Amino acid sequence: MKINYPNPSINHTSQKKTINRSHGMLFESALNSSNEFYRNKNLAFIYKKPTPIQIVKVDYPIRSKARITEAYYKTPSTTDYNGIYKGKYIDYEAKETEHLTFSFKFISEHQIIHLLKINEHGGIAFIIIYFRRVNRVFIIDILKFYDLYIHQQENNKKSISIPLLEEKGKEVSLGYTPVIDYLQAVDDLYFTK
Amino acid sequence: MKINYPNPSINHTSQKKTINRSHGMLFESALNSSNEFYRNKNLAFIYKKPTPIQIVKVDYPIRSKARITEAYYKTPSTTDYNGIYKGKYIDYEAKETEHLTFSFKFISEHQIIHLLKINEHGGIAFIIIYFRRVNRVFIIDILKFYDLYIHQQENNKKSISIPLLEEKGKEVSLGYTPVIDYLQAVDDLYFTK
Repeated sequence: MKINYPNPSINHTSQKKTINRSHGMLFESALNSSNEFYRNKNLAFIYKKPTPIQIVKVDYPIRSKARITEAYYKTPSTTDYNGIYKGKYIDYEAKETEHLTFSFKFISEHQIIHLLKINEHGGIAFIIIYFRRVNRVFIIDILKFYDLYIHQQENNKKSISIPLLEEKGKEVSLGYTPVIDYLQAVDDLYFTK
Repeated sequence: MKINYPNPSINHTSQKKTINRSHGMLFESALNSSNEFYRNKNLAFIYKKPTPIQIVKVDYPIRSKARITEAYYKTPSTTDYNGIYKGKYIDYEAKETEHLTFSFKFISEHQIIHLLKINEHGGIAFIIIYFRRVNRVFIIDILKFYDLYIHQQENNKKSISIPLLEEKGKEVSLGYTPVIDYLQAVDDLYFTK
């Protein structure tokens, strides 16, 4: 057996998205290609989890190729991405917005709980947010996010502004290879102490 | 926000399987319920990844519920399960056989490569194998597995026997809660030195 990097063509877990689900596709595919870059550089092994699908009906027109004829999108039980970086478990949720604040309605409570659990167990857990209109990306550690989540809602606010993310999170520099070099920001937040 | 454990009904990533894909369903569901047990005990956060699906056609009979009408199973690019245990990244592939040896044809090279990479980066990486006929489960570290994989094939053997697994791996005790208490075996292999 030759030790090769996995074939990029089978790395992608992205699917042909449809209009309703096209939000965030550019961000997702930029993240996926950044993770592929990190894998090829042998820096980190982080993958996007496949979208969970509830399969109802399958046909077998040819024995070897089952054809799913009725299925539905399911709500993911965890987060979009996980893997290993510098010996640590890493887990994050990727979000994108066209607004200038990040609304809490875009993240589910069970995803927040999941990320808090990962933190409690010694993993790196954060949310990465892309603000499309200003083309800026931030990561924010789940504990800091959770503090804001509680604090803002106590003050009847249902979102986080970019200045708050500048203060509490870390901006990710955008470039070419990789497009979203978020491991630099991860280094700053988790590996400099 | 109350901190509750995630709702078990949305934890399951299993799908209605069809006849062709029913192999391993009992083992998979026993593993899933064992992982749910570990989560509820706050011991480990390990999930089965959803099966990747290539979506070709989606209908929108009602705006809020997209219906997938043509899709196909894809080959997973990584492994079945990953997560965090005792602060360490853990990653494994689950296999089941009705034979008394484990044939190498049941595991793909890119899965072996993936697990070797995880090991190289400091994660826990193994294969868990269920021998249905004798109702026995073993885990074997990916490095030990890879040695056997090379060595056996050099000797024109394309499988691993149960006695070899007894020697090189660790048997998992089967019980009730959890059904497959494989973290005990993981402790023995990875946390006793």
